[in-house]
Amino acid sequence: MKKVIDSVKFDEKGLVPAITQDFETGDVLMMAYMNSEALGKTLESGNVHYYSRSRNKLWMKGESSGHLQLVKEVFVDCDGDTILIKVEQKVAACHTGHYSCFFRKIEDDRLVEISEKVFNEENVYGE
Amino acid sequence: MKKVIDSVKFDEKGLVPAITQDFETGDVLMMAYMNSEALGKTLESGNVHYYSRSRNKLWMKGESSGHLQLVKEVFVDCDGDTILIKVEQKVAACHTGHYSCFFRKIEDDRLVEISEKVFNEENVYGE
Repeated sequence: MKKVIDSVKFDEKGLVPAITQDFETGDVLMMAYMNSEALGKTLESGNVHYYSRSRNKLWMKGESSGHLQLVKEVFVDCDGDTILIKVEQKVAACHTGHYSCFFRKIEDDRLVEISEKVFNEENVYGE
Repeated sequence: MKKVIDSVKFDEKGLVPAITQDFETGDVLMMAYMNSEALGKTLESGNVHYYSRSRNKLWMKGESSGHLQLVKEVFVDCDGDTILIKVEQKVAACHTGHYSCFFRKIEDDRLVEISEKVFNEENVYGE
């Protein structure tokens, strides 16, 4: 296991939030959680891995969809309790079909979709 | 209170993670937490407010340092459980004196500082 993981402060559940960002456009793509194993596999494999809180398991982003996140750079914040990963995103980050999970903007006290889908989620994840 | 806040899913502690990003450069600046009051004040005032988990209180970013975050755009992710705010950052986001809290990069299994300080934190926050 990478020693640098010791400098990360995981919370009482053993998790740390990880933000992924497109390394070219700067678009923030998603935020999910990692345990130390997910962070270790991310650093060792070059593919972003997360820990699913709902499924209670490690997963590699894109393992079912093919929409991998290839690691370009990894940052740790000042307090050591948040990770930022710059990635090359294959196809799209969001399971809804949008490139980024942040495709809804608050305007005039309501949510407005600001981007088109780049894939049909039913074809990728099933109905 | 803004109705759009009802579409945000706060966790069991009543909090939601909020990522701030420089609206011009795309730099991810920090991640902190908001309760519904902090999100409401952020939307109403145009200055980013957070909820401090360590101090158990609402705070306006920059209230002691003057390093305000002026709201440009606010996004809600696909699941409604993470907020992204594009801001104009005054001076710097990080209490360490760095512009972004993500100033440490993982290289060869260690943390390397990749940016200079833009202010001396002892002059701003006291020793």
